[in-house]
Amino acid sequence: MHISLTETAAALKAVQRIVITAHVNPDGDAIGSSLGLMHALKALGKEVQVFIDDDIPAAFSVLPGYELIGKPAEGQSIPADLLVAVDVSLDRIGKVAEAVKAPTLNIDHHITNDDQADKLYLDGTAAATAEIIYQLIEELDVPCTQDMAMCLYTGIALDTGWFRFSNTKPRTMQVAAALLSCGAQPHVISEALEQRPLSEVQSLAFALQKIEILADGKVAGICLDNADLQEHEAPEGLIGMVRVIEGVDIAFTLKEKEPGLCRVSLRSKGIDVTKIALQFGGGGHVRAAGCSIEKNCAEARNDLIKAILQVVEAES
Amino acid sequence: MHISLTETAAALKAVQRIVITAHVNPDGDAIGSSLGLMHALKALGKEVQVFIDDDIPAAFSVLPGYELIGKPAEGQSIPADLLVAVDVSLDRIGKVAEAVKAPTLNIDHHITNDDQADKLYLDGTAAATAEIIYQLIEELDVPCTQDMAMCLYTGIALDTGWFRFSNTKPRTMQVAAALLSCGAQPHVISEALEQRPLSEVQSLAFALQKIEILADGKVAGICLDNADLQEHEAPEGLIGMVRVIEGVDIAFTLKEKEPGLCRVSLRSKGIDVTKIALQFGGGGHVRAAGCSIEKNCAEARNDLIKAILQVVEAES
Ligand SMILES: [Mn+2]
Ligand SMILES: [Mn+2]
Repeated sequence: MHISLTETAAALKAVQRIVITAHVNPDGDAIGSSLGLMHALKALGKEVQVFIDDDIPAAFSVLPGYELIGKPAEGQSIPADLLVAVDVSLDRIGKVAEAVKAPTLNIDHHITNDDQADKLYLDGTAAATAEIIYQLIEELDVPCTQDMAMCLYTGIALDTGWFRFSNTKPRTMQVAAALLSCGAQPHVISEALEQRPLSEVQSLAFALQKIEILADGKVAGICLDNADLQEHEAPEGLIGMVRVIEGVDIAFTLKEKEPGLCRVSLRSKGIDVTKIALQFGGGGHVRAAGCSIEKNCAEARNDLIKAILQVVEAES
Repeated sequence: MHISLTETAAALKAVQRIVITAHVNPDGDAIGSSLGLMHALKALGKEVQVFIDDDIPAAFSVLPGYELIGKPAEGQSIPADLLVAVDVSLDRIGKVAEAVKAPTLNIDHHITNDDQADKLYLDGTAAATAEIIYQLIEELDVPCTQDMAMCLYTGIALDTGWFRFSNTKPRTMQVAAALLSCGAQPHVISEALEQRPLSEVQSLAFALQKIEILADGKVAGICLDNADLQEHEAPEGLIGMVRVIEGVDIAFTLKEKEPGLCRVSLRSKGIDVTKIALQFGGGGHVRAAGCSIEKNCAEARNDLIKAILQVVEAES
């Protein structure tokens, strides 16, 4: 059932023991929103616990309260008056769903939210759930502390790609300005989150050496076969490094995850890459699509490049 | 002579033919501030030209008015009632200084400004000159258009590392929020500015393969000898890729720019790297320093590493 921000605040004020959770494979917004809300509710005198059914990347230890995030054990039962799920639909909170038998309050900005919670506050215009949590903190009339500000700035910064993506709206920036006034330290957050293991930097160097350029520079991609991936795990965001090459319209990566099974990612600056992904039973959006090809790396590469070049030719 | 923002607006309103300039080797703030101010003054009915004594990177063609930026020819004389220099002291505007014989108005945020202009508006608390130009546009009572907003958002975004650096203040964000309301499109700006030539991505791959790890992972660096640099120009910001490796305190790059002449950059997360740079006649700040070593790459590398390890040992 959809409720208002005022009703959301009232629902939180009405209870004492609160468990906050977020999605498995949590990102900066999930973690930042959970911890930001935790600090605010503690300031109201509530008993608050955060449980997320996953490991939390160590980089997020820069966020105040990081060490308080719990992971539910098999069969654990966590008493609570209310389960608050942020940045997520209830079907992606893992074992927390069984561990906490309590009424559910859901706070989210994904318009795909499945509306299965007892109460749902959904604002699809918010760039991040953290942007909503800031407004909720104002509604709760809790003074925003530096701890809250650090957590919420992180959520907003990461969900907007540091204020780069088109979801960055005037209100997003106004909330970020307010969080800076409350003591958020963007340089501390970014320094911590930019740290990468040496192995990832080395994998990046390895993968970038395999860039291939096709169609007079309109197409660029990287193919990593299973042996490559055994030696060097593909670094996160690899396709982003291909996409930024000047003149490239279609960027692709092809990774032979298991022998004979390749995972393909496609990005474009204009051409509709679903036309390529659909040929292999995949899908996506005009500028970002993907598919799998059940062949070895060399064969899958041939099929993929043929399909890409056909689409590029049809467009030019 | 220092003047107020109101006096700056009055000085601009009092004249008709205005030339705007910025520093050689112009960055996003120099270009964005120049063009943003140009659009505003044109809206006031002024005759405005922008001249910068350098080539303007093509990536900035995303900014409205890019194609209007001129480069003064040898001996050219450009008539004007006022020369406005933004984001710079007057000693770094190159040939524009001789080409434009007019009273000078200087608008800047660098506290190192040399105060040599006839009139200077300096706000050292501004993260970017573009932040000042937005306030000036309000003071001039010109409605902020999308063209102005695109230029000024770019200046602010680049001088704050996309709202990451510690110069990002609440007012910075509030101005950015206002610019979004005026139509700034951060995703268009960032897409354009993130483009890199293929050769730069390839150079990065080459350089990253040369990462060396020392002192149990506390030190990491890349040495490129003159032959390397003949083949692969060192990519911009290379040391940043070394600095983000987990556990690394001191990052360095050593580039043999000419045979027998090495340029060293040092970054740290804690240890004072001026202690290293000073040994070679260089200098800098605690966390960012540099020096030159007049030896070939292998010899310079030995001397540098010895000095680094001594400092690391003394600190631990
Ligand atoms: Mn989110
Ligand atoms: Mn500047």
